[in-house]
Amino acid sequence: MSDEERGDPAFGGSCPVPLADYPTVQLAHGGGGRLSQQLIEGLLVPAFDNEALAVLHDGALLEVAGARLAFTTDSYVVRPLFFPGGDIGSLAVHGTVNDLAMCGAQPLALSCGLILEEGLEMATLARVVASMRAAAAAVGVPIVTGDTKVVEQGKGDGVFITTTGVGLMREGLTLSGDAARPGDAILVSGAIGDHGMAIMSCRESLAFEAPIVSDTAALHGLIAAILDSGADVHVLRDPTRGGLATTLNEIAKQSAVGMMLREAAIPLKPAVAAACEFLGLDPLYVANEGKLVVVCADADAGRVLAAMRAHPLGREAAIIGAVHADADHFVQMTTAFGGRRIVDWLSGEQLPRIC
Amino acid sequence: MSDEERGDPAFGGSCPVPLADYPTVQLAHGGGGRLSQQLIEGLLVPAFDNEALAVLHDGALLEVAGARLAFTTDSYVVRPLFFPGGDIGSLAVHGTVNDLAMCGAQPLALSCGLILEEGLEMATLARVVASMRAAAAAVGVPIVTGDTKVVEQGKGDGVFITTTGVGLMREGLTLSGDAARPGDAILVSGAIGDHGMAIMSCRESLAFEAPIVSDTAALHGLIAAILDSGADVHVLRDPTRGGLATTLNEIAKQSAVGMMLREAAIPLKPAVAAACEFLGLDPLYVANEGKLVVVCADADAGRVLAAMRAHPLGREAAIIGAVHADADHFVQMTTAFGGRRIVDWLSGEQLPRIC
Repeated sequence: MSDEERGDPAFGGSCPVPLADYPTVQLAHGGGGRLSQQLIEGLLVPAFDNEALAVLHDGALLEVAGARLAFTTDSYVVRPLFFPGGDIGSLAVHGTVNDLAMCGAQPLALSCGLILEEGLEMATLARVVASMRAAAAAVGVPIVTGDTKVVEQGKGDGVFITTTGVGLMREGLTLSGDAARPGDAILVSGAIGDHGMAIMSCRESLAFEAPIVSDTAALHGLIAAILDSGADVHVLRDPTRGGLATTLNEIAKQSAVGMMLREAAIPLKPAVAAACEFLGLDPLYVANEGKLVVVCADADAGRVLAAMRAHPLGREAAIIGAVHADADHFVQMTTAFGGRRIVDWLSGEQLPRIC
Repeated sequence: MSDEERGDPAFGGSCPVPLADYPTVQLAHGGGGRLSQQLIEGLLVPAFDNEALAVLHDGALLEVAGARLAFTTDSYVVRPLFFPGGDIGSLAVHGTVNDLAMCGAQPLALSCGLILEEGLEMATLARVVASMRAAAAAVGVPIVTGDTKVVEQGKGDGVFITTTGVGLMREGLTLSGDAARPGDAILVSGAIGDHGMAIMSCRESLAFEAPIVSDTAALHGLIAAILDSGADVHVLRDPTRGGLATTLNEIAKQSAVGMMLREAAIPLKPAVAAACEFLGLDPLYVANEGKLVVVCADADAGRVLAAMRAHPLGREAAIIGAVHADADHFVQMTTAFGGRRIVDWLSGEQLPRIC
């Protein structure tokens, strides 16, 4: 069913399609797009209604005994477990560290919940765990507590990992998705779509001339560099599930603004562009695991760009567009051919189990 | 293979059977018994080696900006999702609140990671989420952040939930499993085996004369009452997976002591005793979700008992035994018939997916 058929007048806005349209859970409810948003806003947020959750950011802010803490959780169900550039273990560490970092927090500790499928090779589990260990050590964040459950064969899929993180917020800093303002610049830290296409290329057993490697990486160092530049940063967000398009739509909606992107300015590797073309995918919707979006005061865009480019994980950073006033909260893009198109929310499930 | 065949000389002690004996993950690796212990000690702890993890308690202690925090995580895979007395949602809230409380912490906030199976009834999910909400509200602890993933039909089992909790430690209090001392008294807060037998009775479609209802409950209030009594409490632990026997063996091992229990003193409901008898299960190994074990100075046992009995969740509390010096760290029991037996670690998987 298309958006028109659903009679969806405000497709960048709130979620007009009632959950009742879907009597059962669809893969797309986990895809990071419109259906995910509907599940979250239609069922989960009302159920868990509280101030911290309503912020709908990558994590919650806790004030404990005078300390400002960030608290965030993510479950990882990526398949295959091992892919070019990473695996579910490193991804589970990086992803949760990144969610803390996007709140402007310094990661302090992680927990790890494992749900294992009976019959999983012990050697496979050992590889995943070793990868988590290496990733945590590289980030400098210990995994301090955990839990392990086992389900029967055919009731799980190898390994699912849920990592939860606690971080310490920077003094005086609160980043949230509603702080983008008309006139702000929009930057991305590097080429988009690498993670999603790395997963797809190994799932589909595609051999491209240039191998595509996941960008999975911990971004807390890059973020520290950006914040240390003294720039007036309004929003930080990592464009994971649903890709850059989904992340920008979320920010536009929360901040009640519109955005105009320049397609030619968005970094994209030729191999990823070719793979997307081949599979009929739009790289704007393909997941990233080591990239971030910055929305900042326009006057500080150059400073943020310089700080990113000076960091190994931001060498290909670019200014990709600007925020403007728009009652419809549309994200639009001027295309390479001089046209203009709406960059809509992702409607279906593009790439299931990408993280 | 029996313990004898494995040549296991210290079956209450460390884990002599190498992981290599099991090239694949078994259900029993998640059962809370000996194999779980081997997986944790043989693979997970060495991999994530750090001071906080090595304590091996229900949670980790974090010192953040002068505040002492407890941090704990648990994944829930119980089936069926709904059972007499509770469901996976309330269980996921109670279990993690209890893990915080066992560290001597006041629960502050929970996170919730959902892994849903494609095709799950949306109404079922709504029931689970409503139950989590109600449980969290009753406890007074908000669910402040979450994540939702969806896996293909046949790659999950309805709903898996991972809840992680942050709590604030009581001033001056540190509880860990290694603090039991010869002479200490051992208490339990009520009848054992209710949760596990409630699950089993609905799985096996057994109709007993008296229905068996899970004891799932949040124990932070009971623990506050115990600690407020001023008693010299050494260890608090909730006997979940693997039951009372497993919890006591863990404490005996970590504290390097022996224990002597009196079978006649251990509270057990007649219906649970009958169901265990019928199914050939030992209630000492059956999971509880609303009970706790206290090890305290013998002189304070009466005070702890009174504090427990004055609380709605501790009315059937009892002193069930004492700690003594034992280089083998055996947990033993004087039986109702006047004999004595070793209460060993659980070797296999008694009740898979009990929580």
